[in-house]
Amino acid sequence: MTFHNKKIAIIGLGLMGGSLSLALKKRFPRCILYGVSRSKQKIRYARRNRIIDKGSCDLRVLLEKVDMDIIIIATPVRIIKKVITDIHAVARNKPIVTDLGSTKEELLRWVDRSSFSNVLFVGSHPMAGSHEMGLSVIQKDLYTNTMCFVTKTSKTSRKALRVVLNMWKNIHVRTVVINPTRHDKIVSKISHLPHAIALLLVHTTTRSGAAVLRYAGSGFLDSTRIAQSDASIWIDILLSNKVNIIKDLALFKNATDTLMHVLKKGDERKLRAFLLQTSAKRKKIKSLL
Amino acid sequence: MTFHNKKIAIIGLGLMGGSLSLALKKRFPRCILYGVSRSKQKIRYARRNRIIDKGSCDLRVLLEKVDMDIIIIATPVRIIKKVITDIHAVARNKPIVTDLGSTKEELLRWVDRSSFSNVLFVGSHPMAGSHEMGLSVIQKDLYTNTMCFVTKTSKTSRKALRVVLNMWKNIHVRTVVINPTRHDKIVSKISHLPHAIALLLVHTTTRSGAAVLRYAGSGFLDSTRIAQSDASIWIDILLSNKVNIIKDLALFKNATDTLMHVLKKGDERKLRAFLLQTSAKRKKIKSLL
Repeated sequence: MTFHNKKIAIIGLGLMGGSLSLALKKRFPRCILYGVSRSKQKIRYARRNRIIDKGSCDLRVLLEKVDMDIIIIATPVRIIKKVITDIHAVARNKPIVTDLGSTKEELLRWVDRSSFSNVLFVGSHPMAGSHEMGLSVIQKDLYTNTMCFVTKTSKTSRKALRVVLNMWKNIHVRTVVINPTRHDKIVSKISHLPHAIALLLVHTTTRSGAAVLRYAGSGFLDSTRIAQSDASIWIDILLSNKVNIIKDLALFKNATDTLMHVLKKGDERKLRAFLLQTSAKRKKIKSLL
Repeated sequence: MTFHNKKIAIIGLGLMGGSLSLALKKRFPRCILYGVSRSKQKIRYARRNRIIDKGSCDLRVLLEKVDMDIIIIATPVRIIKKVITDIHAVARNKPIVTDLGSTKEELLRWVDRSSFSNVLFVGSHPMAGSHEMGLSVIQKDLYTNTMCFVTKTSKTSRKALRVVLNMWKNIHVRTVVINPTRHDKIVSKISHLPHAIALLLVHTTTRSGAAVLRYAGSGFLDSTRIAQSDASIWIDILLSNKVNIIKDLALFKNATDTLMHVLKKGDERKLRAFLLQTSAKRKKIKSLL
């Protein structure tokens, strides 16, 4: 399947959905991009700014009128199942459906169990974004040169997987095919644990008022930047991956205990080893990108 | 005291000392800046690149020859006492001495107890820097528009305090006069705790190899940037402020326990409140700068 002349719907017009629509329109000028949002205002804004070609406030109504080739669900995690159920209820063709959600295990287990007859679902999780939200901050290059996880299970349609991989590659996104269980373990470590830690850091340092933070420098600000992210998106993520996150928080706590013990004893040798090893590991990460 | 024509010595030619020397030379072209380092190579580099006017490998020898007006100690924390002792041993005039170290309580207690007859010491802690090290990354604007803590105790010379405050203001650094005990409590929260947390985050996520981190995005990288900092500088900082850091790590652990409990129970209401409050607090911090 090539993408020219295809009909693509994007459900959810926020930073992620809006930026993806722009990138797809730029790469495939002859596709028709349909934007779906409950907010008429967002649709108006998106049409006026040529972020989408057409808009609708009601996915079911839209799908009853138009057979989509690809549907991209760009909503918070908890709404994804509901959207898939809606698509399943009304789609007459067999659209390829993907999402942009940050957790995958629970969703794909549900999708596989449901065995939808008329939805070919493949999960996507692009490692792109910002702590800022909404259509006003969209960027046509948000995804360029980033990486996207794409799920594959025993029930995943080969054709749908190929199309979704192709879509990402076409807008210069490197793809990593992964099973949903492993995906959720990895993102707990690289994204959800760091997010929880940033929140806990802000919480701990502002316990007795935020006054001391008037002196915070770039180190503190960088360490806690992600704590500014949208709460409703993160409630879904933290709850839907809570098993892995709780495990990683427990590991973190153990490491904290060890460090506290080393500090209490003033064990310079162990502290030096910890600092040297850790800073060397961190320096290596940069070079992997 | 004005700064024109003064003799200023900077002990330690790294990022902090080198950048300060450049800023002072730019602001006070008629001062003479003396750089002191054990490394002849660094002195050669600093002279060749006009970072300093004159250099010496031996502070005692230099002070036997030249009466400094101001001496700035830009070494790791643990060496500061040794440098002050050296100055005390050979200075014939009564130079004003300051430092750039990140902890102050232990140092100032020692200074006040020592009652040096020929050293007027005032502690400085500029909230500027980088995780990168050395003369090759110095910037003449490293300090511009940043903030610097300056210590005041019952024994601090008024004159020396005035001169040190003046020096910082002249290179566009906002100063905050503070007592050393309160200083160390504050920087534990805004700098040392975040540093320890960044190290623990890298440590926890790389326990079973660094492989997963090939997928890390900008969130992870920002959260852990400071973990790359120089180990020897941070051993000194963490050990010299360990009482406050251990207290803050304990608070952090308590908050972690609470979050783990909320996640385990799937308590959406509490999780939402935590996320909303914390992200609102973090957003406020930016606006204080």
